Amino acid sequence: MIRAGIVGASGYAGGELLRLLLGHPDVEVVQAASQSSMGKFLHQVHPQLRGRTSLRFISPDALQPCDVLFLALPHGEAQTHIEQYTALAGTIIDLSADFRLRDPAAHAATYGDHAAPDWLPRFAYGLPEINRPALRETRYASGVGCNAAATILALGAVFNAGWLDAGQPIIADIKVGSSEAGRQPNESSHHPARAGVVRPFQLTGHRHEAEVRQAFAGKLAGVRLSVTSVEMVRGVSAAVHVTLPPGLAERDLWNAYRAAWNGEPFVRIVHEKTGIHRHPEPRLLAGTNYADVGWEYDPDTGRAVLLCALDNLGKGAAGTAVQCMNLICGFDETSGLSFGGFYP
Amino acid sequence: MIRAGIVGASGYAGGELLRLLLGHPDVEVVQAASQSSMGKFLHQVHPQLRGRTSLRFISPDALQPCDVLFLALPHGEAQTHIEQYTALAGTIIDLSADFRLRDPAAHAATYGDHAAPDWLPRFAYGLPEINRPALRETRYASGVGCNAAATILALGAVFNAGWLDAGQPIIADIKVGSSEAGRQPNESSHHPARAGVVRPFQLTGHRHEAEVRQAFAGKLAGVRLSVTSVEMVRGVSAAVHVTLPPGLAERDLWNAYRAAWNGEPFVRIVHEKTGIHRHPEPRLLAGTNYADVGWEYDPDTGRAVLLCALDNLGKGAAGTAVQCMNLICGFDETSGLSFGGFYP
Amino acid sequence: MIRAGIVGASGYAGGELLRLLLGHPDVEVVQAASQSSMGKFLHQVHPQLRGRTSLRFISPDALQPCDVLFLALPHGEAQTHIEQYTALAGTIIDLSADFRLRDPAAHAATYGDHAAPDWLPRFAYGLPEINRPALRETRYASGVGCNAAATILALGAVFNAGWLDAGQPIIADIKVGSSEAGRQPNESSHHPARAGVVRPFQLTGHRHEAEVRQAFAGKLAGVRLSVTSVEMVRGVSAAVHVTLPPGLAERDLWNAYRAAWNGEPFVRIVHEKTGIHRHPEPRLLAGTNYADVGWEYDPDTGRAVLLCALDNLGKGAAGTAVQCMNLICGFDETSGLSFGGFYP
Amino acid sequence: MIRAGIVGASGYAGGELLRLLLGHPDVEVVQAASQSSMGKFLHQVHPQLRGRTSLRFISPDALQPCDVLFLALPHGEAQTHIEQYTALAGTIIDLSADFRLRDPAAHAATYGDHAAPDWLPRFAYGLPEINRPALRETRYASGVGCNAAATILALGAVFNAGWLDAGQPIIADIKVGSSEAGRQPNESSHHPARAGVVRPFQLTGHRHEAEVRQAFAGKLAGVRLSVTSVEMVRGVSAAVHVTLPPGLAERDLWNAYRAAWNGEPFVRIVHEKTGIHRHPEPRLLAGTNYADVGWEYDPDTGRAVLLCALDNLGKGAAGTAVQCMNLICGFDETSGLSFGGFYP
Repeated sequence: MIRAGIVGASGYAGGELLRLLLGHPDVEVVQAASQSSMGKFLHQVHPQLRGRTSLRFISPDALQPCDVLFLALPHGEAQTHIEQYTALAGTIIDLSADFRLRDPAAHAATYGDHAAPDWLPRFAYGLPEINRPALRETRYASGVGCNAAATILALGAVFNAGWLDAGQPIIADIKVGSSEAGRQPNESSHHPARAGVVRPFQLTGHRHEAEVRQAFAGKLAGVRLSVTSVEMVRGVSAAVHVTLPPGLAERDLWNAYRAAWNGEPFVRIVHEKTGIHRHPEPRLLAGTNYADVGWEYDPDTGRAVLLCALDNLGKGAAGTAVQCMNLICGFDETSGLSFGGFYP
Repeated sequence: MIRAGIVGASGYAGGELLRLLLGHPDVEVVQAASQSSMGKFLHQVHPQLRGRTSLRFISPDALQPCDVLFLALPHGEAQTHIEQYTALAGTIIDLSADFRLRDPAAHAATYGDHAAPDWLPRFAYGLPEINRPALRETRYASGVGCNAAATILALGAVFNAGWLDAGQPIIADIKVGSSEAGRQPNESSHHPARAGVVRPFQLTGHRHEAEVRQAFAGKLAGVRLSVTSVEMVRGVSAAVHVTLPPGLAERDLWNAYRAAWNGEPFVRIVHEKTGIHRHPEPRLLAGTNYADVGWEYDPDTGRAVLLCALDNLGKGAAGTAVQCMNLICGFDETSGLSFGGFYP
Repeated sequence: MIRAGIVGASGYAGGELLRLLLGHPDVEVVQAASQSSMGKFLHQVHPQLRGRTSLRFISPDALQPCDVLFLALPHGEAQTHIEQYTALAGTIIDLSADFRLRDPAAHAATYGDHAAPDWLPRFAYGLPEINRPALRETRYASGVGCNAAATILALGAVFNAGWLDAGQPIIADIKVGSSEAGRQPNESSHHPARAGVVRPFQLTGHRHEAEVRQAFAGKLAGVRLSVTSVEMVRGVSAAVHVTLPPGLAERDLWNAYRAAWNGEPFVRIVHEKTGIHRHPEPRLLAGTNYADVGWEYDPDTGRAVLLCALDNLGKGAAGTAVQCMNLICGFDETSGLSFGGFYP
Repeated sequence: MIRAGIVGASGYAGGELLRLLLGHPDVEVVQAASQSSMGKFLHQVHPQLRGRTSLRFISPDALQPCDVLFLALPHGEAQTHIEQYTALAGTIIDLSADFRLRDPAAHAATYGDHAAPDWLPRFAYGLPEINRPALRETRYASGVGCNAAATILALGAVFNAGWLDAGQPIIADIKVGSSEAGRQPNESSHHPARAGVVRPFQLTGHRHEAEVRQAFAGKLAGVRLSVTSVEMVRGVSAAVHVTLPPGLAERDLWNAYRAAWNGEPFVRIVHEKTGIHRHPEPRLLAGTNYADVGWEYDPDTGRAVLLCALDNLGKGAAGTAVQCMNLICGFDETSGLSFGGFYP
C-alpha cells in the first residue's frame, strides 16, 4: 500500500485521477491539494466521489511527504516548482505538457522556454505502449497529450511495419469532446454555443505534433494534426490518413496490428467486417483506460485510414498516469483500471 | 415602414429580435445598442446575421430617436432608465420582467422595489392571446416570462371553461433548455457540466408564479412552477397537472380548446390519437412564434395533464415582442413571424 | 463461486447484467441465451464486453442447469415458461414485470391475465430498500419497474414519516432516456426523430402505478405517474409533487431522510444548499447501482418536490437484480456493484 | 405562379422540399405522392407542416400533370420511371443520385447499370455554383450528393486558382448528422446506439467521389472522401486537406475565395481571425440554403485545410433543388430560400 497525493486536484483530470486512485487496491489517497477549492470536500467539486471519500482539499502549501505525487496542474506550473515536488515524493507523475518533450529545443519551440530544462531527460514519456522499459526504470513519468496519444496509437502498427515513407503527408483528423478544454467556463464552452457543433478548432500547427514526432524518433516529419470539436463530453477519435506501399493485403494489416498490440492490456483491435461497432468509437470507452485501434484499407488505391479512439481523461490523461504509476511501483499494470465501460 | 432600435442587443433575445426584425417587411432596423459589444459588427456577436446586415453595435448613449425601441436589457435596467427610453421612442417593447406585473406590491414581493412604479400601469402585459385588446390601445408592452407564458397557455382553455377550482394545487412541471439562462458563461452552463443533464433547477418559489396568477386575475392561487433543465438549447415544455370536475369527456376538452384557441394565429392544438408527434414538442418550434398546446385526460380519475411547448427565445421572448409591435403599430399580427420551423 | 446463466441476454438489460456479472467476484457466467443472437459472440451484440469474455450466445433450448438463472425476457414470456426455468435453477431473478405484483387481480388489471398466477406469491418484490427481509428468505426475486423504483424511492422517506395523506393527489413527473424503450429500432427511437426532444410519452394511466401502490401497501392511492422522454440514453429522474402537513421544517425532512436511508449502501441523500449538483441527477449515475434522493421544500406553502434519480438499466433493472442475487445467495450486498460513476 | 408536384414526398428531403415550396411566392404545391403515406395529411408525416397545408398524400399512380415535378425517391427509382415522370411535367428536378453522373460508364461503375442511360446527358448537374449556365438552359436538373457538394464547394476556390496538383492526394474528412441516412429506422439509427457517437462510417471508396471528380472535369483524380457520423441531426462539415504551392500568403487565399464566391447568393466566406465562429459550422446552417466556406492555411508547410459546412437536407438536397427550379423557371434565384438560420 503506497500513499499518494495529488496537486491540482480540482480539474477534470484531477477528478478522474482521484476516482481511479480511490478504487485502486494498492493505493491510499492521503492528500488532494487545490488552490481554488481549498477547504471543500472532494465530492463538492467532483460529484462522482460522493460517498467515496471524506477528504477535503488542502492548500498546495500544506502538502506533506508521500510516496507518489501526481501533478495535475495547468501547463507551465509543474516545471516551475519541480524541485519542491520532488522533495515531497520519490515518485512523480506529471499530467501536464511540461515534461513530455525530452529535447529542450523542441520544448522551447513548442511551448516556450522551459523553467527547469535539466529535468527534462529525467522524465520518461508516459505512454507505456511505446515506452514501457523506460517507465519501469524511472521514478518520473510525464503525461501524454490526448490527441498525440490517439495519433501515436493509430499509427503505431503501420509505422512498426515500416510502411510509412518519412516524407509523406500524414493527416490526423481528430474529433474531440468538450472536456478536453478543461474546467474553466468561457464563451466557447457555454452550452448554448457548444451544443451540437462540428467546430474546426485547431487545424494547423497543433502543439501535439512535436510529441508525435518524438514518439516516432523523428521519422514521421510529415504528421499533421487537425482538431475539430464535436458534440461529446469525453472522447478523442483520430482518423489518420496515409498511403501504404503497393501490394499489401488486409491480411498484412491484421498481421501488423497483431504484432504491435497483442499482449497490450489496454489496446484492443476493433476491425469487424460488419456491424455498427466495427470501428473504434470513443463513446464506448468513456471512463476506461482502453485505446481501441482499427483501420479501413483500400488495396486498389493503397489508401488507408488508421483509427484510434480513447477517453481524453482516461487513457489520454489520468488512466495512463495510473498505468505509469503501476509500472513504476511494480504493481500489476492493470491494477485500478479494470472498469471496461458500459453501453448503451 | 417604421424605424426600430434595440438596446441590450447583444444577448440571445436581442439576437433573435434582430433576426426577426431584419426579415420584417414593415420595419427598418436603424440601431442596435450594446455596452459590451459596442463597435463590433452585429454578425460578429450573432453569427446567424452574417450576410444579413452591415450594422455595428453602438453605445447605448448614442441612441437616436426612432419609432419603436425594444429593450432587451437585464432585469432591473429598463425600469431605471424608462424615462430616457420613452423620450427616444413613442413605442416601447420591453422584454425584461420590469413591467410584467401591474401591481407594484406584487412586483416588490417578487423582484424587489420597482424604480418607477408609476410606469407599471402604463404597460400592457405582452401576451396577445390573453391581452390583445389592451395591446391594441397601448404604446407600451411588457415582455413575458417564457415559463409563465407556457403555463398560461397550457392552462388557458381549461381555465376559460371554468373547470379549475381556485384552491386546487396546480403543478406546472416545466422542462427548459440552456439558452434560458442567458449568454453569460458560468459553471452551470459549462458544456461538460451541462450536457445530458436532467437537472432540477428551481422547484419551488419560482418568480414567474406571480405572472401566472396575474394572468388569471388571482383565481388560480394554487399554481406552482417547478423547472428542470434538460439537454436542449431552445425550448420550454410545460406539463400542468390538474384535476377536472367529474363527468367531462374528451369531446368537452376538444370544445374548450377550440373555443379558446381557434383563430389564434400562433397557438396550435396538437392532440393526436397516435403517432410520435401527438403531443406538443418544443424541438419542432425552435425559431418560430408558435405555442403548441395539448393535453392528456383520464376520465376515470379526472386527472388531466395540460401541455404547452414553445421556444423560449421565440414565443417566450422575441417572437411575442414582435407580435406585440405588430398589434401596436397596426401591422398584420403575423408579419415577420412566418417561419414555421423545420424537421428533423 | 456460483454458476449463473441469463436468458434474454441480447437486450440492453441483458447486456448490463452480463457486464456486472462478468465483474462479480463470486459469480461465473456459464451461459447466455438469446433466440435472436444465437451463435454470435457476446461482444458482437454488447460492444462493452469486448475483451471481457469469449462466450457465445446459445439457444434458449440449450440452457443447462445452473445455480442462478436471470430472466431478461420481454414482458409476458417469463410467466409462460416459469416451470421450465425453475427446473433449471434453484434461484431465479426475473427482470420483467411478470412477477412484480403479488396480487393476481392487480396483475390482471394492469397487464392482463397471468399465465401462472400460483407463482406470484412465491416471488419477492425485488427492491431491497423496501423488501430486504423477504429477499433474504426467498429464492425467487422479481424485477422492478424503473419508473416505479424511482417514484418509490423518492417517496419513501416522507411516507415513512407518516406525512402523506392517503387521499392527496401525488404527481410523479418522470423524465426518462431512450434506452428505457428497449433495443428494437422503431419510428420513435429513430435518432433524427428522437434527438433533442422533450416528448410527453405516457402522462396518465401508467402501468407502474400499480407497483407503486403495492409498495406502499395501498396507502397512497392517489399516486399518478407522467413520463416524458428527454435527450439522454440512460437515466430516470422523478420529481414527485406533494403537500406536507403544516409546521414542518427543513430539519424534519433531513431527519426523515436520514431515518429512511442511512445504512442503505445504494441510496445517497443529495441535498446541498448550493452548487450545480445540489439535487440528484441521473447523468452522474449512469452505469451505477445508486439511487440518489433529495427534495426541495417550501415551508410557506407546505409544498415539497421529492426527487430521485437512477440509471434505468442499473438500479432500475440489472443493478437491482444483482443486488437481489447478493442477498439471496448471502454475498456482500454490494458485491459486483462497486462502480460509482464518472464525471464529467 | 407555377404548379408543382412531388413524388417520394414522405422522406426527410421530401419534407424539406414541401416546407420550402409551401413558402415559395411563385409556386403552388398541388400534389404530393407517397406510396407509404398515401391518404395521410402531410402534417401527420411532416410535423413541421402543421397548420401550413391541408393537402394529403396521394398515390404515385394518381399524379396529375403539373409544371414542375420533383422526384425525391430512393436511388434507382427515378431512372426506372423517368419517361412516365417527364410525360407528367415539362420540368423535372430529381434529388436522387440517378442523374448526377453524365457518363454512363461512370454511373455504372459507381451505382450499377443505368436503366435509362440516354437520359443522363439531358440532365444538368444541379449545383448552381458550378453549373449555372447549363441550369438556365435545361428543363431537367439532377440532385447533388450532400457530401460531394460540401467537398466541391470546399475545393472550388483553390481549384479555380490552379493551385491543386492533379496527382496529389486530397483527403476530404467529412462529419455528418443522422438525417443523412434517411427516414427508415434501423439498428444504426436507433437513438441509444447513435447518440453521442463519433462513428467512422465510410472511410474509403465513397460513391460521391465520382461526383467530385466529374465536378472538376477529371482533374482531381486523387480526391478521397472519408465520412464519420457525429452527434447532430442535420449538417455536413467537410475538412479537405491539401498542400498548396510554395510562396502563397493569406492574402492570396482571400483573393481566390473572393474571386470564386463573390456574387454567389448562397456561399458565404467565413474566415475570421478570432472568435468561436471563425470557421464554417453546420449547426448555424440548419434549415438554410447556405454553404459556408473557409480555410486554415499554414504558410510554413504549405498545408491548408479547406472547409465547407452546409445542411444536408437544405443546400445538400432540397434547397439546391429549389434553387435549380428558380433558375430553370426564371425566378429570382433566391426565391423561397430566404430563411437564414437561427442561433443559438
